[in-house]
Amino acid sequence: MSLFQSDHMTTSPAARSIAVLTSGGDSPGMNPAVRAVARIAIRQGFRALGYQNGYDGIFDDELVDLTAESVSGLLERGGTVLQTSRCQRMMTAEGQAEAVRKLRAQNVDGLVVIGGDGSLTGALRLTELGFPVVGIPGTIDNDIHGTQMGVGVDTASNTIVDMIDKIKDTARSHRRCFLVEVMGRGSGYLALTTAISCGAEVAVIPEYRYNMPRILEHLAARFRTKNKGSLIILAEGVCSAEELINKMKEVDGEHVLQQEVRKTVLGHVQRGGSPSAYDRMLATRMGELAVMGLLQSETGTMTSLRNGEVTLVDLEYVLSRKRTISTTLTRLAKNMGIEFGDTVEV
Amino acid sequence: MSLFQSDHMTTSPAARSIAVLTSGGDSPGMNPAVRAVARIAIRQGFRALGYQNGYDGIFDDELVDLTAESVSGLLERGGTVLQTSRCQRMMTAEGQAEAVRKLRAQNVDGLVVIGGDGSLTGALRLTELGFPVVGIPGTIDNDIHGTQMGVGVDTASNTIVDMIDKIKDTARSHRRCFLVEVMGRGSGYLALTTAISCGAEVAVIPEYRYNMPRILEHLAARFRTKNKGSLIILAEGVCSAEELINKMKEVDGEHVLQQEVRKTVLGHVQRGGSPSAYDRMLATRMGELAVMGLLQSETGTMTSLRNGEVTLVDLEYVLSRKRTISTTLTRLAKNMGIEFGDTVEV
Amino acid sequence: MSLFQSDHMTTSPAARSIAVLTSGGDSPGMNPAVRAVARIAIRQGFRALGYQNGYDGIFDDELVDLTAESVSGLLERGGTVLQTSRCQRMMTAEGQAEAVRKLRAQNVDGLVVIGGDGSLTGALRLTELGFPVVGIPGTIDNDIHGTQMGVGVDTASNTIVDMIDKIKDTARSHRRCFLVEVMGRGSGYLALTTAISCGAEVAVIPEYRYNMPRILEHLAARFRTKNKGSLIILAEGVCSAEELINKMKEVDGEHVLQQEVRKTVLGHVQRGGSPSAYDRMLATRMGELAVMGLLQSETGTMTSLRNGEVTLVDLEYVLSRKRTISTTLTRLAKNMGIEFGDTVEV
Amino acid sequence: MSLFQSDHMTTSPAARSIAVLTSGGDSPGMNPAVRAVARIAIRQGFRALGYQNGYDGIFDDELVDLTAESVSGLLERGGTVLQTSRCQRMMTAEGQAEAVRKLRAQNVDGLVVIGGDGSLTGALRLTELGFPVVGIPGTIDNDIHGTQMGVGVDTASNTIVDMIDKIKDTARSHRRCFLVEVMGRGSGYLALTTAISCGAEVAVIPEYRYNMPRILEHLAARFRTKNKGSLIILAEGVCSAEELINKMKEVDGEHVLQQEVRKTVLGHVQRGGSPSAYDRMLATRMGELAVMGLLQSETGTMTSLRNGEVTLVDLEYVLSRKRTISTTLTRLAKNMGIEFGDTVEV
Repeated sequence: MSLFQSDHMTTSPAARSIAVLTSGGDSPGMNPAVRAVARIAIRQGFRALGYQNGYDGIFDDELVDLTAESVSGLLERGGTVLQTSRCQRMMTAEGQAEAVRKLRAQNVDGLVVIGGDGSLTGALRLTELGFPVVGIPGTIDNDIHGTQMGVGVDTASNTIVDMIDKIKDTARSHRRCFLVEVMGRGSGYLALTTAISCGAEVAVIPEYRYNMPRILEHLAARFRTKNKGSLIILAEGVCSAEELINKMKEVDGEHVLQQEVRKTVLGHVQRGGSPSAYDRMLATRMGELAVMGLLQSETGTMTSLRNGEVTLVDLEYVLSRKRTISTTLTRLAKNMGIEFGDTVEV
Repeated sequence: MSLFQSDHMTTSPAARSIAVLTSGGDSPGMNPAVRAVARIAIRQGFRALGYQNGYDGIFDDELVDLTAESVSGLLERGGTVLQTSRCQRMMTAEGQAEAVRKLRAQNVDGLVVIGGDGSLTGALRLTELGFPVVGIPGTIDNDIHGTQMGVGVDTASNTIVDMIDKIKDTARSHRRCFLVEVMGRGSGYLALTTAISCGAEVAVIPEYRYNMPRILEHLAARFRTKNKGSLIILAEGVCSAEELINKMKEVDGEHVLQQEVRKTVLGHVQRGGSPSAYDRMLATRMGELAVMGLLQSETGTMTSLRNGEVTLVDLEYVLSRKRTISTTLTRLAKNMGIEFGDTVEV
Repeated sequence: MSLFQSDHMTTSPAARSIAVLTSGGDSPGMNPAVRAVARIAIRQGFRALGYQNGYDGIFDDELVDLTAESVSGLLERGGTVLQTSRCQRMMTAEGQAEAVRKLRAQNVDGLVVIGGDGSLTGALRLTELGFPVVGIPGTIDNDIHGTQMGVGVDTASNTIVDMIDKIKDTARSHRRCFLVEVMGRGSGYLALTTAISCGAEVAVIPEYRYNMPRILEHLAARFRTKNKGSLIILAEGVCSAEELINKMKEVDGEHVLQQEVRKTVLGHVQRGGSPSAYDRMLATRMGELAVMGLLQSETGTMTSLRNGEVTLVDLEYVLSRKRTISTTLTRLAKNMGIEFGDTVEV
Repeated sequence: MSLFQSDHMTTSPAARSIAVLTSGGDSPGMNPAVRAVARIAIRQGFRALGYQNGYDGIFDDELVDLTAESVSGLLERGGTVLQTSRCQRMMTAEGQAEAVRKLRAQNVDGLVVIGGDGSLTGALRLTELGFPVVGIPGTIDNDIHGTQMGVGVDTASNTIVDMIDKIKDTARSHRRCFLVEVMGRGSGYLALTTAISCGAEVAVIPEYRYNMPRILEHLAARFRTKNKGSLIILAEGVCSAEELINKMKEVDGEHVLQQEVRKTVLGHVQRGGSPSAYDRMLATRMGELAVMGLLQSETGTMTSLRNGEVTLVDLEYVLSRKRTISTTLTRLAKNMGIEFGDTVEV
């Protein structure tokens, strides 16, 4: 399906081009990934192009040349300089067919898509229509099946940990209970790892049904025996912080908690920031492999971290199921004394 | 009034003691201030004591010895190791009289109180009852009259700026409007300086009535001419972020804004974190002067940054009026193109 | 060999104890590892103990009780609260035998050793003498064979990247060449990954012989075509920064470089700092497994990250060879245009 | 002397232009200052221009238009996007005359120079030759007379404090003595404030002659009584870290110190980094006033922080003497127990 290793390739490689776009929610590390795709493509003799504003850039002909010069300085910048969007037009079969026509008219020979589940679904559709695409998982939520880590998860984890360390300074000064809502878009990964990394008492995540009486007893016991404040991490998607606090009050009829509960919703801060060393490496490795995948006709795939190595997995496999929380992680949380829900999964 | 320079001082100085407490909302820099008070007191031949849990510690006899050893490592720690509270008992005349009795029974000869307006009011009451107290302004809100800066403002400003820089990464990636609510407890200082430091388009602060049609026109013009997202800083105390967004929608009947508005409430993260270099210096200078003030009978005062120097001002003067935003700051905001409200103050 | 699952275990588990120590160069993440070992041990019904000052603590009876309370707050602290040393006494057979006698006299039933190659060699010797030990790789250099990552490497990488980002600010302001020496103790891992993460032009590492004429040509070409400064990363252990600059001047007789070369030796800053989210997770997982290893008699082992999972490997295997740089990493460096030496390894 | 308020101004203001340049060593906050100068100039109806590469840009006609767009994003960037240099040509009378000719030929009507003593001397020369210039103190060393703070000092202080906090993590883990060399270019300001902010035992600064026997006794006493490591801050310009350690060994013939001394030279990291909130505000205020100074013919001046307010002072006064360390600072250091030298100044 690839146009890259055709036997009757008559034009010089320099005439051929690889494009890259970022789509969906932005994540730190998208810029280093764009830089790596551009640099490797150029090194392999291709022209490197960038679509602006996600898939919309394909439809709107927002296409820029990426040169060694223009991608310089991207390693340390958060967000995505190509900008991103959630493109409505890519959600219909007509739009997808139109995208392929556009891509060909724009003389693009292969595409790298950096984004989450929705963006990767678009990538799979383009491949099914005969256009070569390789995806790179770009997400802070780590909710993509088929890879141990997405580009951006590590930076977001560090940002969350930094912020919660600051909240703990004030929590310790007051003997209060703090409830912190972190991102996750339906996945409890960030919430549960954060609870472990920050020493929280409770994690409320979408994968496990929380048990409010047990949560309250856990917090009350801590307050009784240690006279200490406590920390609850809530994954977005379960309910709002407000709702959880109301639920606590409702169940805690006898005020065993004896503590005020203060909430903080970390919000969009979690998406930004200069990529961590880990994310720069992961993005660079995945950018390299994505271009190699296009060159070797391994399209319809996504770069993936599996067993500690970066490899290509089929997008169909990636999109075939929802990512779950590993039992290694839940066991660790349990062993560290974190109350995170009933053993039966939701 | 002071017990320190009595002509008939018969006991050795070592028998005399200076106590310190932190009260009200915690702020980064309280720990370095506690450390400086303890170290200077010890160096001057006094015993240094710390009350735990704010004024409550006086009533509950929660008193610990502070040694060079025990205050070691405090420079870099956020929050307050002495813990803090909003003490109800100090709000009545009976409570205040009881506090003086307790202080004397505990053999405390002078007290340093680190906190905000409410805590400093308590300090003034104790002085009025004949007990020597010097206050140190500890606040992230910079809402204390009589000092250019409170201990903690600079660290909070850096924390806010770091978080908003991260939000700007994602704002730039999406061409969206972001509304960020910062702390301030009735003062627009943090919001207005943050707007200048982060290049916001709009600041909504309690001191000036905001003009929603003008705000909308300002943002819409930016979007029309530059196709760019924008940043609004809201000071807590004006209204909630939710309410401001609703107001925007209500006034923007014709959708000139054409942008989604995303909100982030920075919350308690703003109170924490290792004190900045500036706050460590300010806290140390103020801690030094507070002890000197006790020794030189200049009690009923607060350490203050005035004209670039740390000096003592009367607590009565400090508590006599509400701090206002300086015209230097509003002029700068206006010159930098920030829309922050009608010229007539609220 | 283990004392933990003995069939004729007559004492209650609570009478049994697990001790932990940190040894050799300190690394961020040692504290979270100590915390995890203590918490898991306590949860499993054991008494948790900590030796101070590395192996020296065994000889000097510097042994403290570790409680849930006393290890609280360790997740966010750099260095090691147990302190560390390079213990001379553990380097002789007599010393090792004496250590076992001491451990038994102190009623310690199993030991967790957190440290690098030297410290782990000590752990192996104790096991050979019949005392149950499990090791945890604590190193910023990532120079331990048998594990993909050591506890501390990720934090050090982030610290280095942050500092080099700052140096790049000034490098860009001046069009100068900067030479930065990073740690590594004989391993080029930190230097090579840093070069990739920071977009350096050159990495000089102990594993590959550097080619000075090629380095100079690489830098000169960049200066000629782009009029830009450049960045060289030097791993400690190859030569000093001073020596490399002298070598550059010596080979560059005709001054093709046309740039001043400024050096920075990052030094001990690299060892400190609050552990990153990654290191907190890795340390916690390894601490959990180390205790489980002791309980299940899998002693003489080290916790290891292999294929993305934390597992136990034999210390004999770990210490049997020197860790090398993976070809995945060198290929990536080459593809990203980094000049790092002759293809033949040293 | 100013061309701005001429009575017979016949051209429209829009035809007139204000240029800005950064010169000498770069400092964080230069970018926000450039941004403020450009924005205020544009707001006042002028064209804003930027010289690249310091004064060299004048000679080499490296002049770029600064627009609201092009200075966007500068608040958070370290270094200087205009780049900087130490310009040899500005050091001769011929060069200075040539610079004025060039400035006029380039239709520049007023100039803002951001830099240190040397750069400001150039600014004074241009004014003496009839060309209107206002200076802004840009320095991390805080070695400019006539202003309490230079733009960049606060950011550098925070960077130093962060790095030394990390070094203290490792110092505490080892009971070692650490010697840290900080920048200062002949001024002990950074070293002495850092010593206070980080709780160092000793500061060696150029303004006071150090007393090695007293330093050794100070450190030895600490080691004897507390069994603790210690921290020495050395200002560059006194001697190299190597030389100081050799001196220590030479004087400490009887090894009373009993500790290894490890050195770290913080180096160029101190110059970089995103400007702190304080530096963003100071740079913006100074940029505003610099343009206002040009408009109001108050040229031959420098923006200065005096008594807590930003004002203009004559460059002649600024350059007439060397800045000294204030006695407030030395008294504080002494009171906090820092050994920094003989009472007689050097």
